[in-house]
Amino acid sequence: MKTAKLYETLADAIAGQVAQGVLREGDRVPSVRQTAQHHQLSISTVVRAFLLLESRGVIEARPQSGYFVRRRPDGAAQASAAQAPLSPAELARAPALDTSTLVLTTLRSIDQGSIPLGSPFPDPTPFPWARLNYHAGVVSRRGGQNQLLSDLPPGNPELIRQIARRHMENGLTVDAAEIIITTGATEAINLCLQAVAQPGDLVAVESPTYYALLQALQRMGMRVLEIATDAVHGIDIEALERAIVEQGVKACILMPNFQNPLGFLMSDERKRALVQMLARHDVPAIENDVYHELYYGDSHPGSLKQYDTRGLVLHCNSFSKSLDTGHRIGWTLPGRYRAQVEKLKFLNSLNTAALPQLAIAEYLKNDGYDYHLRKLRKAYAQQASIMSAAVLRFFPPGTGVSQPAGGYLLWVTMPPAVRALELYARAQERGISIGAGNMFATGDAYQHCIRLNYSYPWTAEVEAAVRMLGQLARELTTARLS
Amino acid sequence: MKTAKLYETLADAIAGQVAQGVLREGDRVPSVRQTAQHHQLSISTVVRAFLLLESRGVIEARPQSGYFVRRRPDGAAQASAAQAPLSPAELARAPALDTSTLVLTTLRSIDQGSIPLGSPFPDPTPFPWARLNYHAGVVSRRGGQNQLLSDLPPGNPELIRQIARRHMENGLTVDAAEIIITTGATEAINLCLQAVAQPGDLVAVESPTYYALLQALQRMGMRVLEIATDAVHGIDIEALERAIVEQGVKACILMPNFQNPLGFLMSDERKRALVQMLARHDVPAIENDVYHELYYGDSHPGSLKQYDTRGLVLHCNSFSKSLDTGHRIGWTLPGRYRAQVEKLKFLNSLNTAALPQLAIAEYLKNDGYDYHLRKLRKAYAQQASIMSAAVLRFFPPGTGVSQPAGGYLLWVTMPPAVRALELYARAQERGISIGAGNMFATGDAYQHCIRLNYSYPWTAEVEAAVRMLGQLARELTTARLS
Repeated sequence: MKTAKLYETLADAIAGQVAQGVLREGDRVPSVRQTAQHHQLSISTVVRAFLLLESRGVIEARPQSGYFVRRRPDGAAQASAAQAPLSPAELARAPALDTSTLVLTTLRSIDQGSIPLGSPFPDPTPFPWARLNYHAGVVSRRGGQNQLLSDLPPGNPELIRQIARRHMENGLTVDAAEIIITTGATEAINLCLQAVAQPGDLVAVESPTYYALLQALQRMGMRVLEIATDAVHGIDIEALERAIVEQGVKACILMPNFQNPLGFLMSDERKRALVQMLARHDVPAIENDVYHELYYGDSHPGSLKQYDTRGLVLHCNSFSKSLDTGHRIGWTLPGRYRAQVEKLKFLNSLNTAALPQLAIAEYLKNDGYDYHLRKLRKAYAQQASIMSAAVLRFFPPGTGVSQPAGGYLLWVTMPPAVRALELYARAQERGISIGAGNMFATGDAYQHCIRLNYSYPWTAEVEAAVRMLGQLARELTTARLS
Repeated sequence: MKTAKLYETLADAIAGQVAQGVLREGDRVPSVRQTAQHHQLSISTVVRAFLLLESRGVIEARPQSGYFVRRRPDGAAQASAAQAPLSPAELARAPALDTSTLVLTTLRSIDQGSIPLGSPFPDPTPFPWARLNYHAGVVSRRGGQNQLLSDLPPGNPELIRQIARRHMENGLTVDAAEIIITTGATEAINLCLQAVAQPGDLVAVESPTYYALLQALQRMGMRVLEIATDAVHGIDIEALERAIVEQGVKACILMPNFQNPLGFLMSDERKRALVQMLARHDVPAIENDVYHELYYGDSHPGSLKQYDTRGLVLHCNSFSKSLDTGHRIGWTLPGRYRAQVEKLKFLNSLNTAALPQLAIAEYLKNDGYDYHLRKLRKAYAQQASIMSAAVLRFFPPGTGVSQPAGGYLLWVTMPPAVRALELYARAQERGISIGAGNMFATGDAYQHCIRLNYSYPWTAEVEAAVRMLGQLARELTTARLS
């Protein structure tokens, strides 16, 4: 509680200087280190204050240069947005405030040209843009009004057929009538969560977990239970069962394939055991399978859904990690919750844009998805090795890395002395973005961990960035020890 | 409560007959009238039971033929969806169950080829599909990866500029930095609601109001207060102020221009008075302005937003009513709540599809939006007169109609003896869809009202449909009197 007060007080003080004109638009804000010395506060407190000010729109980070007072266009709206960005209710639900601020700040810095090692998105370069654009063009030219009429949920029938076919090619027999198209997996997971749990319900997640889930649960007023999750085997099934029996877990969200951030692939045996255990207790599982096409092994991984005989697995998926990031097309197979999820889709966004659905359906029907994916998998597997080796070489002794079996995310565990938030701030000043471990849990368990994105080709610039990160991490180790 | 039990019991009994094979897939279900006689229940109870069964996927309506047991593809998922479509929690929050079921059923019947007088969507025929498709094609061909990269919220900068320009041409000076792009106005309103109110808060709406708002509030666990709203002047400002003072209304949702379903245009004077009253009490207003381009008068109507000096008006808008229905592009100007709404947009759907944003931006920049709108307004104004005259001619004495000042929706008030739900069921059997008044409030205040869509050209088929509705309404009057 003391730390929270300190960083808020500092943020308010700096915002006050801006309001009084002591710091003017475009002025450089004193560095994290200077501010820490001046106010006799820890680096970590200053970083939190700066993140809060950034989310409030008071200051902004510029790559290679540090923080500056943000230039604001005229107009009351923007000014008022800067004054009152977080409602009292939002501030009251404070535990994840830092996380959500940190997530937004990380995404923004990527958008502004940082080296995107903290990005959750894949490098778009190797994606088949030309072909997707070609199909979008064909669909657009061909399309009379009927082609672009709003397809009510569940979505465009042709895309649904293509998704069902793809699932079957990948070994999962699905009923096309179960599929509902969504605006990316983000909307799919949100709708499924609302279908299986109510505000106040306890929902189990992996630890560490994809930060957006923690934010989604917080937003819906659900309580989070983080279950120990192994970077090799996945979630601790026994611990989850105990939590169900003893604490009344209402639902769980799991990512058995190439989990974000740990990258593990749960074995088929464990997947089956997990689904059977959940069936015994009649507890639904939301399965996030967005990396399913990005396996490094010989064959497509199984899914929880294929062991589900009771309609308890709500499978969520997307094309955003494997085909394109701009069309925002996801889908869900919500099992016995299909009717509720479809109704929630109506309520949440009525329907999903038609043209992207049609363009992707055409691509899946007529084009080289498999060829594209083979290239992508090969590149990611190679880049995983190179990035892992570089981290182990440049980072301080005691650093460990995950061994992703698919996807494009590496989890780095540094010596406990290195605080990811401090590394984040120092790296940001040098134009490098990283995913601070703090985002992946509600507590402090991963504050010495970071997540790195290796979907980008291994260039001299990326190598220099990883080397710089290693050097900064070493400095933080030394600073702490001295 | 008694009625609720009866219709549920009847629905369960019919579902049981299907499960036991008494009624088989594809069988015609006995008509509403036969069922009512057989079980000695009211027509209204049977209609509710059939709607519930339809939403459960047990039966389906076929235009001109009545209800049939739905053919189901094989597969456990579909079967389980049919068995357990509504969670106990959903059933417990029962007051709006009929409404949401009725809304879905109405939308489905339109999708299945009914004459769409009950549709909330405009006839897509006169929309500039060819030009939009042309621009989508150009953008697709031109677009390298950068063109289609995910634009993080607030959205594509060029589209945001075009929207700001359009607002200014229409007399509303906006700061482009305030605009956030959303998946239609539906998502915009949902995000704004979550920014201004918490579960349990009391939110004021107009009565009658757009049914999706009632569903959204129910879904978010907020309490609804319906404020008397006049078909000429709009919401009763004094009643709203009393409710704020005496009942602690936390926020309100208003549609001052061409309200759905009443079609009124609130005067500028009353808009200003409303905003000033809300400012005195520091209560935010979500302004739904999706019909703003569809005015019949000489000039664009004002908006609540233009009188807002405190950042308390969250303006929500969309292209879906005036430019195209398939791209699902909306936006919001959320005033002082901008930061929260942007964060909620991230959480809800991450970002909005890029290609539709680019295609609309190109159209707005380079094409004939004003020309298209002039034609549309002229057609809608004419069709409003024709539809009103036809309703007054064919419907029973005592029927009244609204006088829409814009948009494409007519509100019809029938003699109290005519129950809209019964008219709905009989019309559906004849392949005609209508919007039953029950959808527009939580209580029974509008059960003798219907909403008709006049965006479609006045053909012999439409005239025959209105004539048939009038005849059915007359029968219902007589039946009730005899």
